[in-house]
Amino acid sequence: MFFKRVAIVGVGLIGGSFALALKEKKLCGHVVGAGRSAANLKLALERGVIDSIASEAATAVQDADLVLIATPVAQIEEIFLLIESKIKPNAIISDAGSTKRDVVAAARKGLGGKIAQFVPAHPVAGAEKSGAAAASAGLFRDRRLVLTPLIENQKVDIETISSLWTALGARVSRMSPEEHDRVLAAVSHLPHLLAYALVSDIGARADAAQLFGYAAGGFRDFTRIASSHPEMWRDICLANSDELLKEVAHFSGQVEKVKKLLEKKDSKAIEKLFTDARAARERWLNGDYE
Amino acid sequence: MFFKRVAIVGVGLIGGSFALALKEKKLCGHVVGAGRSAANLKLALERGVIDSIASEAATAVQDADLVLIATPVAQIEEIFLLIESKIKPNAIISDAGSTKRDVVAAARKGLGGKIAQFVPAHPVAGAEKSGAAAASAGLFRDRRLVLTPLIENQKVDIETISSLWTALGARVSRMSPEEHDRVLAAVSHLPHLLAYALVSDIGARADAAQLFGYAAGGFRDFTRIASSHPEMWRDICLANSDELLKEVAHFSGQVEKVKKLLEKKDSKAIEKLFTDARAARERWLNGDYE
Repeated sequence: MFFKRVAIVGVGLIGGSFALALKEKKLCGHVVGAGRSAANLKLALERGVIDSIASEAATAVQDADLVLIATPVAQIEEIFLLIESKIKPNAIISDAGSTKRDVVAAARKGLGGKIAQFVPAHPVAGAEKSGAAAASAGLFRDRRLVLTPLIENQKVDIETISSLWTALGARVSRMSPEEHDRVLAAVSHLPHLLAYALVSDIGARADAAQLFGYAAGGFRDFTRIASSHPEMWRDICLANSDELLKEVAHFSGQVEKVKKLLEKKDSKAIEKLFTDARAARERWLNGDYE
Repeated sequence: MFFKRVAIVGVGLIGGSFALALKEKKLCGHVVGAGRSAANLKLALERGVIDSIASEAATAVQDADLVLIATPVAQIEEIFLLIESKIKPNAIISDAGSTKRDVVAAARKGLGGKIAQFVPAHPVAGAEKSGAAAASAGLFRDRRLVLTPLIENQKVDIETISSLWTALGARVSRMSPEEHDRVLAAVSHLPHLLAYALVSDIGARADAAQLFGYAAGGFRDFTRIASSHPEMWRDICLANSDELLKEVAHFSGQVEKVKKLLEKKDSKAIEKLFTDARAARERWLNGDYE
């Protein structure tokens, strides 16, 4: 497994880390990057994340054996439309989108007859830092990588992408795009939305300075994801709004339940809820759910 | 400032760290510990957190110059009732309760004529670990310490407790118990409640294993505080339920607002909310709210 020329469209945290990891494992030759921010691409070049800059995505993919689209998901359809005619016949295209139904739909619209070459993927690895400056070769180590293969995909291409991510340290599994979006809505998209909601609310209050002034470590960790890339998360929340809205409704019901326990001062039920939560989290941290 | 004999009732994370910090700064002689768990006290003794174990709180405080009550807040009234007759005339009593109105009320009921000796305090330093095993001398370094002095307190006693915590590295400030409970409801008690609510909900679902299986770093940090001590947090939530319920209602309104934006697919407003949240959090991390 070796890719002579790799094109990365969107050389941010994920795209940049993918490039660095490929290089570290000596799985690629030349890496060309494309993206909206000239400053970010320049930084990526200086850091050795990429080897050259293409002025456009269509130019970047021209001779590439492997293409990774790692932009915010709302941009992917247009990128597919722009690159479709330039993709080599045997190139494999993949992505790093945090939502999968929309990306698959975008591929069906944008890639036309080349749809079979696209193997959709989601590395479940993020950080509140963004851009090529934050990229690191170890980002995917021991992280989940979800493949949501298409019926049109060749088995060998799916295997290649799977082996590739395995080589980068990821734990690869497969789901349908629907299942992926449902699961991620619960454990990723909802927590992001709640963290953003809480911090924006506190920041908008008249006594924000006092409130933040007494916020401590618990608040810092609870809200870390509210420092995530706003555009990326806007796209995710909109792309997955139906599943996310289900989770929001579900969580609102849970909050309503807890509110009633507090109103009734139901000491036993509150302690049980807290104890159950801690126990579930411990099981998770112990790897009981792997 | 030197305390010949210090009594700690509740030698957990906070009480134990207080003892270790006092010793590190050579601010005390003998430290005696009391508490409900013999195993925890034994561990505290073995670790050198305390120098001896008292069978009861009343015995522990007998010859102490300084008494710290660091149990879950619901136990404090009974402890005050038990120790009141044994406290030395010139001893200072303080606490580490995360709520202050209830602790002050408990002191007024339990300490009777010795109420002036009690200087209420809250070190805003926690962790999801609990017990003497988790105690560390550096826990309070650069953390907030809120004093909510009583009208009956002698100025010199307030100054002593203030200087003591300053010596342990804390940033000491003063508030009324009402203000304290309002501020902490927003930035500490609500986030804990939300984290517990989310994790207990996911843990109770039929597909919990799959959901936890794809939970990543964002979820881990968002829910870290759901591993906090259930009994301690039950007591806090109940003691401060009026302020906490206000915050729950406020947050539910905010979630409702975000839900509407998602339903309308209001891309601009969603991005603005996320951007505002990130900016507010950055200002906080930069120390703009100190």
